[in-house]
Amino acid sequence: MPDRIPAAVLGATGMVGQYFVSLLANHPWFRLEALVASDRSAGKRYAQACRWLLGSDMPDIAAGLEVLPLGSDLAAGVVFSALPSNIAGPVEEDYARRGHHVFSNAANHRMDPLVPLLIPEVNHQHAAILQEQRRQKGWTGSIVTNPNCSAAVMVTALHPLHQAFGVKKVLVTTMQAMSGAGYPGLSALDMLDNALPYIGGEEGKLESEPAKMLGTYEDGAIRYAGIAVSAHCNRVMTRDGHLECVSVTLGAAPSLDDIAETFRSYTSLPQQLNLPTAPQPPIVLRTEPDRPQTRLDRDTGKGMAVTVGRLRECPLLGIKFVCLGSNTMRGAAGGSVLNAELLKAQGLIY
Amino acid sequence: MPDRIPAAVLGATGMVGQYFVSLLANHPWFRLEALVASDRSAGKRYAQACRWLLGSDMPDIAAGLEVLPLGSDLAAGVVFSALPSNIAGPVEEDYARRGHHVFSNAANHRMDPLVPLLIPEVNHQHAAILQEQRRQKGWTGSIVTNPNCSAAVMVTALHPLHQAFGVKKVLVTTMQAMSGAGYPGLSALDMLDNALPYIGGEEGKLESEPAKMLGTYEDGAIRYAGIAVSAHCNRVMTRDGHLECVSVTLGAAPSLDDIAETFRSYTSLPQQLNLPTAPQPPIVLRTEPDRPQTRLDRDTGKGMAVTVGRLRECPLLGIKFVCLGSNTMRGAAGGSVLNAELLKAQGLIY
Amino acid sequence: MPDRIPAAVLGATGMVGQYFVSLLANHPWFRLEALVASDRSAGKRYAQACRWLLGSDMPDIAAGLEVLPLGSDLAAGVVFSALPSNIAGPVEEDYARRGHHVFSNAANHRMDPLVPLLIPEVNHQHAAILQEQRRQKGWTGSIVTNPNCSAAVMVTALHPLHQAFGVKKVLVTTMQAMSGAGYPGLSALDMLDNALPYIGGEEGKLESEPAKMLGTYEDGAIRYAGIAVSAHCNRVMTRDGHLECVSVTLGAAPSLDDIAETFRSYTSLPQQLNLPTAPQPPIVLRTEPDRPQTRLDRDTGKGMAVTVGRLRECPLLGIKFVCLGSNTMRGAAGGSVLNAELLKAQGLIY
Amino acid sequence: MPDRIPAAVLGATGMVGQYFVSLLANHPWFRLEALVASDRSAGKRYAQACRWLLGSDMPDIAAGLEVLPLGSDLAAGVVFSALPSNIAGPVEEDYARRGHHVFSNAANHRMDPLVPLLIPEVNHQHAAILQEQRRQKGWTGSIVTNPNCSAAVMVTALHPLHQAFGVKKVLVTTMQAMSGAGYPGLSALDMLDNALPYIGGEEGKLESEPAKMLGTYEDGAIRYAGIAVSAHCNRVMTRDGHLECVSVTLGAAPSLDDIAETFRSYTSLPQQLNLPTAPQPPIVLRTEPDRPQTRLDRDTGKGMAVTVGRLRECPLLGIKFVCLGSNTMRGAAGGSVLNAELLKAQGLIY
Repeated sequence: MPDRIPAAVLGATGMVGQYFVSLLANHPWFRLEALVASDRSAGKRYAQACRWLLGSDMPDIAAGLEVLPLGSDLAAGVVFSALPSNIAGPVEEDYARRGHHVFSNAANHRMDPLVPLLIPEVNHQHAAILQEQRRQKGWTGSIVTNPNCSAAVMVTALHPLHQAFGVKKVLVTTMQAMSGAGYPGLSALDMLDNALPYIGGEEGKLESEPAKMLGTYEDGAIRYAGIAVSAHCNRVMTRDGHLECVSVTLGAAPSLDDIAETFRSYTSLPQQLNLPTAPQPPIVLRTEPDRPQTRLDRDTGKGMAVTVGRLRECPLLGIKFVCLGSNTMRGAAGGSVLNAELLKAQGLIY
Repeated sequence: MPDRIPAAVLGATGMVGQYFVSLLANHPWFRLEALVASDRSAGKRYAQACRWLLGSDMPDIAAGLEVLPLGSDLAAGVVFSALPSNIAGPVEEDYARRGHHVFSNAANHRMDPLVPLLIPEVNHQHAAILQEQRRQKGWTGSIVTNPNCSAAVMVTALHPLHQAFGVKKVLVTTMQAMSGAGYPGLSALDMLDNALPYIGGEEGKLESEPAKMLGTYEDGAIRYAGIAVSAHCNRVMTRDGHLECVSVTLGAAPSLDDIAETFRSYTSLPQQLNLPTAPQPPIVLRTEPDRPQTRLDRDTGKGMAVTVGRLRECPLLGIKFVCLGSNTMRGAAGGSVLNAELLKAQGLIY
Repeated sequence: MPDRIPAAVLGATGMVGQYFVSLLANHPWFRLEALVASDRSAGKRYAQACRWLLGSDMPDIAAGLEVLPLGSDLAAGVVFSALPSNIAGPVEEDYARRGHHVFSNAANHRMDPLVPLLIPEVNHQHAAILQEQRRQKGWTGSIVTNPNCSAAVMVTALHPLHQAFGVKKVLVTTMQAMSGAGYPGLSALDMLDNALPYIGGEEGKLESEPAKMLGTYEDGAIRYAGIAVSAHCNRVMTRDGHLECVSVTLGAAPSLDDIAETFRSYTSLPQQLNLPTAPQPPIVLRTEPDRPQTRLDRDTGKGMAVTVGRLRECPLLGIKFVCLGSNTMRGAAGGSVLNAELLKAQGLIY
Repeated sequence: MPDRIPAAVLGATGMVGQYFVSLLANHPWFRLEALVASDRSAGKRYAQACRWLLGSDMPDIAAGLEVLPLGSDLAAGVVFSALPSNIAGPVEEDYARRGHHVFSNAANHRMDPLVPLLIPEVNHQHAAILQEQRRQKGWTGSIVTNPNCSAAVMVTALHPLHQAFGVKKVLVTTMQAMSGAGYPGLSALDMLDNALPYIGGEEGKLESEPAKMLGTYEDGAIRYAGIAVSAHCNRVMTRDGHLECVSVTLGAAPSLDDIAETFRSYTSLPQQLNLPTAPQPPIVLRTEPDRPQTRLDRDTGKGMAVTVGRLRECPLLGIKFVCLGSNTMRGAAGGSVLNAELLKAQGLIY
């Protein structure tokens, strides 16, 4: 794989950073070249700096790299950011200013009108705004964000419905996995035999991000979709996988069979381009009464597919269903890598 | 306690049956006198027939009783039924016909127009239909039901709002505890690191029972409230306590402060009558951002109070909040015992 | 309760500190008067400084107290210490020097030859060394320690055997609850679907403390028992209660029936003195094949009793059994309070 | 893969049966040809008869097969048995009599002097007894058993020590995963926040099987090793992976470094033959203080390797360590398949 694009990971020692490392260690298009983290880790070998949390062992290619401090000069043109939102903002801007293509998992720039909030299956057209971003920001690089983990799962499931019938109203209640809180994250004493009805800041993201993602790109700007979302966000004792109960009002009144067929036949540009991380198909519709289940379905499509089930009528809003996706893959590192693959395939990064 | 009313428990060896036994073992108004169960258990001492599941030890008064077969002649006038719904129907009717006052936890008779579906705080007026029930059914006894466990919790929380402002629409998503499935119930392999988006039959109950309970008693009949409910029911890995995310449209537009005050000042007949099992107060409003939590709040008011929290505006329906209650106490055995206490205080049973 | 002895709690905001507060809030002999904690909490009301973790609500008497900084002058003669071992040592000594009777849950002074390592049922005679402690240390106060939580449970179970037959060798493997690691303690991501074969420093304590506790007080010194212990310590996903598999070589060859009778008939000074926190009986022997179980048996005797079961022959060491006790009650705060009650009953504190 | 040996699975719908199906669906040497199960399933397609429990989807090759009743004539020469022990005995014998090579996971024939109790790394020499088995039993087929899941893990870890130094005494305490109890197996209400100190029949197996496996094959018979084992068996809330704390007395006094090197350099015949399911290496020694951990290490070597850690001195028996292995792979289906691979490589089945 001689021509792979050099890539760096910011915030490489945290949980999402480790997923980036894992995905890039054997990526056909990107070559992991630099790992950046906080001062506490900088200067150490990654193997020493990082308590590896994922199932398989730390990739050899990463273990030997020296962790660089934040702000270091990077040769890699592509930078994946797993920085926490309390520091991500200016660091990511700085790298964009210095000519790097930043693919960020942080919330800071998601709602910036010039920054695409990208799910390649849903709104690949929004990538076109990068030209405007560079012009107006005066950057030679760029920032592309991926959405909040809950929003990534739900909006992927809503997209085929929105294309076919228009989505008007959404009421969603989530049962989110603990890995979404990072590591060490939640205390086991808080989670054992418990469910928490609160995740700080989460409902606001889940209520605001969909309108941007389901919007259109016109005349150099992203026009929000006219969609109202209400969210209840909860934490339950699962490792990975956000399970979401969704009630929807559509702009038309299709039959449940029509809707099922809409889910089943859904495919999009990443599938057509055969991007390395794109799941085939992007949405799996299950018809058993008790699916999707978090543990059984979260790894579908290597964690990049969204599983939909329990499609039925909602006495209040029209239809309802359950969707599930991996918060660490589709909802975080995998989503960012897929964004980079899209831009590479479109010749926007190289 | 010399004048206590003799009471029997049907389905005494199951989980809900054990809660009945536990509540009646030291009850000031009722005296546990007979235990009835399936043929498999009949003829044995309760201590031998029953694998005791509750925290404290099996009450001595129960341990030595001989388990009677279903249909046995019972001296006790008051009969609590924890029978499963596949056999409860005719057995409960038979006991009512033979003059017993049956307080049933089973779903079979809940929607019968002549059977009160009773939460004493909410619709104690519905007990008046028992006269009609006896007349039309030709029974000397009676059947009183308590609602589905999820409905018991939610309708208790909705009642003060319905009284003050009228409840029009409700969208509820539940995270229900495993004890709701009885014992042995769910496989640990299914529940570990998992959430299940389906509980057979539950959504139908939660969508239909509230309109009956929030209805009025007029001219010898229960008139349903004009309320539409949509439910998503899920099972999560908690032992006891149903956590429910609720969005509501009211018939008026009170401020959140008004609503909070409505919850806080709520009290009802069981509290005024100081019924032994009535919680003081029936609803506890918490203002911390992350409450109620299943483990921390399920035992509030000895499991008979409903805890409400996270009161806020809902962009779609008007307001939203989270409520929690014990499915085994408020939602099952405790609710039935409170029903019996209400009728005893009103002189309807003796 | 007019004559109760004023008491203070050091480290009052942590998990063990909260258990102390809970036990002292309604204690018949002690009156909670002062709460001491780190600088981060000092100056705040306890209700503000402390995230309350226990099931019931924070006691009113504690909620309004102002948290004092470490080293504060205290009027209370009796001081319970829940300080972590990295700071407990000099702070506890300082209070002893200033005339306070310190009952410590910390490891620092446990193996000091002049400090009793006390389980009242097991070695109440060791309290006599306090006279020597004061003389040699030049203190007017005193320090009494309670053992490591695993050791507290096991040594209580071993004591009747040691009295009757002599305990020579012990091989113990523990399955310890998460509350033993304090709060927030262990990450839920580390504990879900996992067992950890390591608890830092625990095996050393469990191997060394029993010989001191089972030793004798002679001529102003504690003589260690000739007992060899080997320990494997593990963490499993339970909230409270340490379950321990124990194989023992005795100095005699009693029958299993003799041993069972030795457990059953066991009682000791705290039971005879009817100390408020003393369980009646101190050891509960269960004969079901699958008991003790952590969740079902940890609260026996309000968490102060040790439950023993599965008594049988060990092909290697002689006999084997399983014992279980609450690490937070018998193994921590409850043990300390019982120590104080013993000394109060003996007139050693007042 | 044109020359693969046809294979059948007995008890194909249970949990272990599903692991067999999963392993055989793409096996290079065996071709899954027939699925046999109880009358309840017989006659249905496997996809209808079987509630698939494993992570990935049911293999297509199995889904369409019609489930055959127990005792059916089978064309496949190789038969893997996942039958429960209450029916396995005569069924397996019958197939052996009819010329099939039965590889059994059931306990029934394990201690039969003519049946090899086989872990290929440990006692591949014992396969030679099959000749004697056929002669004395008058069978044209054969029965080969794999050990109890806990014993499989422990004996693999003990084997290099036994070869090098002789193992004399073993005291083991297990923390076993729930999948060992099959499906549905344990109630989630029993397991949540609990540990069970009892697994019916398990300790007897773990105490008796090692002496047979570590024995020698001489003069047409298996001579037991002179090894005494004492076991405490516990169930904890993990999905897969048995964690075992082991104290051992050796016949020599090697240093811990020598023992570590013995583990590290261990390899055996399956590795030399490069059998498809043989892990490379069979034992992984970890030196971190807190490994092996159930969740992190159970899948090492695709679940076929045993991970050893925490090697240290035991004050009582000599040395102690912790070992871990997958009960479903190394301890059940994977072990059986490896047994079949060994016999195929040796030309004993074809």
